[in-house]
Amino acid sequence: AQIALLPGDGIGVEVVAEAEKLLLAVAAKFGHEFSFVRGLIGGCAIDATGEALPDETLSICRASQAILLGAVGGPKWDNPSAKTRPEAGLLKIRKELGLFANVRPIKASPYLVQASPLKTEIVAGVDILFFRELTGGLYFGESGRKTNPDGSETAFNTMIYSTHEIERIVRLAGQAARGRRKKVTSVDKANVLEVSRLWRQTFDRVMQAEFPDVQTEHVLIDAMAMHLISKPKNFDVVVTENLFGDILTDEGSMLPGSMGLLPSASLGADGPGLYEPIHGSAPDIAGKGIANPLATILAAAMLLRHSLHLETEAVAIEKAVDHVLSRGHRTADIAGGGPAVSTVRMGELVL
Amino acid sequence: AQIALLPGDGIGVEVVAEAEKLLLAVAAKFGHEFSFVRGLIGGCAIDATGEALPDETLSICRASQAILLGAVGGPKWDNPSAKTRPEAGLLKIRKELGLFANVRPIKASPYLVQASPLKTEIVAGVDILFFRELTGGLYFGESGRKTNPDGSETAFNTMIYSTHEIERIVRLAGQAARGRRKKVTSVDKANVLEVSRLWRQTFDRVMQAEFPDVQTEHVLIDAMAMHLISKPKNFDVVVTENLFGDILTDEGSMLPGSMGLLPSASLGADGPGLYEPIHGSAPDIAGKGIANPLATILAAAMLLRHSLHLETEAVAIEKAVDHVLSRGHRTADIAGGGPAVSTVRMGELVL
Ligand SMILES: CC(C)[C@H](C(=O)O)[C@@H](O)C(=O)O
Ligand SMILES: CC(C)[C@H](C(=O)O)[C@@H](O)C(=O)O
Repeated sequence: AQIALLPGDGIGVEVVAEAEKLLLAVAAKFGHEFSFVRGLIGGCAIDATGEALPDETLSICRASQAILLGAVGGPKWDNPSAKTRPEAGLLKIRKELGLFANVRPIKASPYLVQASPLKTEIVAGVDILFFRELTGGLYFGESGRKTNPDGSETAFNTMIYSTHEIERIVRLAGQAARGRRKKVTSVDKANVLEVSRLWRQTFDRVMQAEFPDVQTEHVLIDAMAMHLISKPKNFDVVVTENLFGDILTDEGSMLPGSMGLLPSASLGADGPGLYEPIHGSAPDIAGKGIANPLATILAAAMLLRHSLHLETEAVAIEKAVDHVLSRGHRTADIAGGGPAVSTVRMGELVL
Repeated sequence: AQIALLPGDGIGVEVVAEAEKLLLAVAAKFGHEFSFVRGLIGGCAIDATGEALPDETLSICRASQAILLGAVGGPKWDNPSAKTRPEAGLLKIRKELGLFANVRPIKASPYLVQASPLKTEIVAGVDILFFRELTGGLYFGESGRKTNPDGSETAFNTMIYSTHEIERIVRLAGQAARGRRKKVTSVDKANVLEVSRLWRQTFDRVMQAEFPDVQTEHVLIDAMAMHLISKPKNFDVVVTENLFGDILTDEGSMLPGSMGLLPSASLGADGPGLYEPIHGSAPDIAGKGIANPLATILAAAMLLRHSLHLETEAVAIEKAVDHVLSRGHRTADIAGGGPAVSTVRMGELVL
């Protein structure tokens, strides 16, 4: 299998390097052949080509079975009036490859849960699987700005969804629920937004027709922002639109007390899936060799599972990470001020 | 002064009754004259008139100096395909009275902070003042739905803001910051939304020109959803647009561990302000006499301060509430399973 590596900026380079070593070890141990191709994305791509996602990177991704991404961005490319910004590369790769489903497991590791800002009794045992719609809504609807006769300005963005966009992400959520607690929570703002009313009706129609065995509930986005902190154990599979998902998955990432451990997958109908840690490029610690590679390593496990259908291999990685944590090894971000190992050392320990 | 009372539905009736008694006592003690007029809003208004906000209620409000609202809604009016729903009354009163600024203090009471889902060291001392824009954005932009030739449906909502709408809420935030820690955090999604870029530019322009003495920062909505839980003490005054504010203020309401204590004010350029508890109509406990009236009582204190300019009287109420809590009196929602007093008794204790 060919895997595209897009390390991106900042610590992306360091953490992807560890995941690559691990994938090579998995190939050797389980008798697979993985070949790697590298592409530019984000700030480094802007520096080299003027574009956050050069065509060459896109071709590399299209020719691969899966993509492993590090992180993009940094102060160097932060100028709001710049012609192109690193994030544009993320938005473009999602749209071009049709990666409509962002899948984010939020699971509290028993070894790290005490670092959560939430009380242990609230978060211990949390296990949520988010499905965020990724190629629709306010992110890609029509937008614009105009100057009014009186000199003031008006700007707009459009939140827009069609039934088929809602149906396909709801189906993924429904399927995932069957392998879990058979419950899906759909989050919307149907008391205010017409888009949410279409979302809710479509969700109900698909779930009733195709997943009658799965329990469903609707929660408003504002209530969900509360419940996610006050009773996170009530949720199993959660499905929502793009912007609500952006907000909720980030809020949810605080629960386990170890953002440096959380991976995410972005999947399309066919073609390669994209896997990445949810943390950013962390320019403040980039190049110091202290970044936590575990989220990227766990993203590689998701890659093996979802794009290469290598479940045993995925589980082997997840178990190794768990084992390393159970033995008390920590990178600085999760060491709580205690002794910490380097990025490379953490990679070796998992290996 | 004339004060409009809109008890609304569910526990709204019970909690407004306690606040009314308190306002009468304040009038007697400090030598003011308050007259009260009552109006219908929400489910009870739909039952009586078919409308969630009858014209008569609107006239009553317009003729008053301030409005005290209970809560609206309940399962009886929850049918999503109903012609009109209780929330429509809220949206309409905001728009009709030009209540563009929703002001929500989030302050952790030292007597209740241990009930927070967050760790005490994270939330003790939290003191945030939110300014949520309330009459623009996705809530009031153009919306619609259409059936496509293939039978599928498409729905849209528009997030739209003009400079003057942004300027006026930013000014309120800037003024408030002067009386506090002189720092304003503006929340947007400027890496994706054109509306947010206009928001950010306008915020910067107003703050630099009119509040050069106030420190400013920008935080993206997804990052803010994280930081609000992981480091809430970093924030003082926060200003944001309508939907982001809806989500963040509700998330923030979990911090103090006592949602039953949080009031909110909705203010316009002139005309009456509207004051309410942030909790809902709680149909499950309505009529049982056990609801917590403190949020509504504290909303009445905000009413005295902001609409009637009676600072001493407002402080007297806030101190009384604090004193009652310090003595260990609790309604069921904040009693943590311990002994609890009734709604009326809590009102008497504050009196
Ligand atoms: C960088 C930004 C455009 C992006 C998003 O909002 O989708 C990020 O927050 C994410 O969640 O991947
Ligand atoms: C009921 C609903 C329309 C309302 C809103 O979204 O503004 C509520 O959530 C609020 O915050 O007052």
